[in-house]
Amino acid sequence: MAELGFIGLGIMGKPMAGHLLAAGHTVRVYDVVSESVKELASKGAEACSNSREVAQKSNIVFIMVPDTPDVEAVLFGKDGVTEGIKSGSIVVDMSSISPIATKEFAKKLAALGVKMLDAPVSGGQVGAEKATLSIMVGGQPEVFAQIKPYFEIMGKNIVYIGTNGDGQTCKVANQIVVGMTIEAISEALLFASKAGADPAKVREALLGGFAQSRILDLHGQRMIERKFGPGFRIRHQQKDLNNALEAAHKLGLSLPGTAIVQELFNAVAAQEGGSNLDHSALVLALEMLGNCKVSE
Amino acid sequence: MAELGFIGLGIMGKPMAGHLLAAGHTVRVYDVVSESVKELASKGAEACSNSREVAQKSNIVFIMVPDTPDVEAVLFGKDGVTEGIKSGSIVVDMSSISPIATKEFAKKLAALGVKMLDAPVSGGQVGAEKATLSIMVGGQPEVFAQIKPYFEIMGKNIVYIGTNGDGQTCKVANQIVVGMTIEAISEALLFASKAGADPAKVREALLGGFAQSRILDLHGQRMIERKFGPGFRIRHQQKDLNNALEAAHKLGLSLPGTAIVQELFNAVAAQEGGSNLDHSALVLALEMLGNCKVSE
Repeated sequence: MAELGFIGLGIMGKPMAGHLLAAGHTVRVYDVVSESVKELASKGAEACSNSREVAQKSNIVFIMVPDTPDVEAVLFGKDGVTEGIKSGSIVVDMSSISPIATKEFAKKLAALGVKMLDAPVSGGQVGAEKATLSIMVGGQPEVFAQIKPYFEIMGKNIVYIGTNGDGQTCKVANQIVVGMTIEAISEALLFASKAGADPAKVREALLGGFAQSRILDLHGQRMIERKFGPGFRIRHQQKDLNNALEAAHKLGLSLPGTAIVQELFNAVAAQEGGSNLDHSALVLALEMLGNCKVSE
Repeated sequence: MAELGFIGLGIMGKPMAGHLLAAGHTVRVYDVVSESVKELASKGAEACSNSREVAQKSNIVFIMVPDTPDVEAVLFGKDGVTEGIKSGSIVVDMSSISPIATKEFAKKLAALGVKMLDAPVSGGQVGAEKATLSIMVGGQPEVFAQIKPYFEIMGKNIVYIGTNGDGQTCKVANQIVVGMTIEAISEALLFASKAGADPAKVREALLGGFAQSRILDLHGQRMIERKFGPGFRIRHQQKDLNNALEAAHKLGLSLPGTAIVQELFNAVAAQEGGSNLDHSALVLALEMLGNCKVSE
């Protein structure tokens, strides 16, 4: 029988673990923030005092933590998952981290008889709360089949990509496209505005043609209305682009557009409170460079 | 009564003028290539020996030529439109050229009592032949209303943007988005492939989420299938991006992403036959830089 564990109860992990609980599963939970553990326990979760204890009491362990070093610590650090986990168990890492590190983690777990899926999500806090996350999965197909029912409790658009790491690779590819498309819309609308045209009319015209994208629709509107509250924070987008650029460096690949986008995010992050703005606020960097605004 | 003229009978202009003829209008035509004039004349057009003659015999003059200097020569050069045109006539420039130059041309024509619309199109040769072009229009609204019936003979998605030059500004914005989105898809799919994931599965997964765009759909597929025949040629995309970068320079605006995209197109154009490939072949520049391919 499946005994579930969930490590990492932040903005994303808390509602995700909550959905598993609400579906009737017993879930062993742990987070470095003890209030989060208590909150989940008050909803029926079994509180644990570290990742080792979660692993001891579960045979399917979900992880949702911020970055690569956090996953590494949860898995292989002191009081970590690998100190408690039984052979035959499954680790499902839903964090968005390095695809290269993920392949290494999967190998080390395999040596302990533990199978791993990488299953990063997109859809943000709203998607986590409404259980409408997109989930991109890497690992063995039969392990995916086994875990799919749990993914369906937490998300909607669940896609199996390929072997270990391919889920993370897909997430990084997603964030490359998202970042650069925001840059494209920013440059286009700022150009239109500076040249004296109405950016709202230009957005509308472009939506009807080959330049159409969901980001032109949603973030184009944000830029025109200057609504830069998150949303998806610039510091999270920057972490994902860092995974892209680091992996590109290791793989021997040049991503000049991604690099530019990361640098422009750096410029926005350099402003007071900038890194907590929505990623559509990339346009602010171009506004600084051009000493002008998309709209007043 | 409307007496139509059409100057510029290339890949685009020939079918566009043909649609006006087919709709029952008399059209006076001129092109520097005399075979094109003869071809249209055989379909019922009235052949003229220069732009001046077209202007003398028409009160609505359409222009569809390659670039800013060509429009300038057609309008203000020897045997040009302004040598023959009557006050009260309308010039409709459907070429894709500089928005800044367009504003100047409109002013010079206004001084002669001639009204102007800028009405660049997107949709390429296929759109011109099938009369499904998108048309982005700048100029006075009442002049737009007067010319709209003719636009409807040549296109489908006809959008009034604003004052003189705003149609060209919108077209430039469109091409900024198109170029940079191609770059985004190129980097993402090449990253996926180099990291060992199946780019076709990554494309599919991304189409279901926030990274969705028409270009991911159509040009993502082209990159995976390596179908780089035109389509929209790199040299035409480069002309449009040149209009973006030149105008940005004059306006005092920094477009770092557009600049990178133009440079990568330069790299593809440096290869034998590269400038005549479809603009989705931008990915070839990244493949050279990364010594790898999206797919074999």
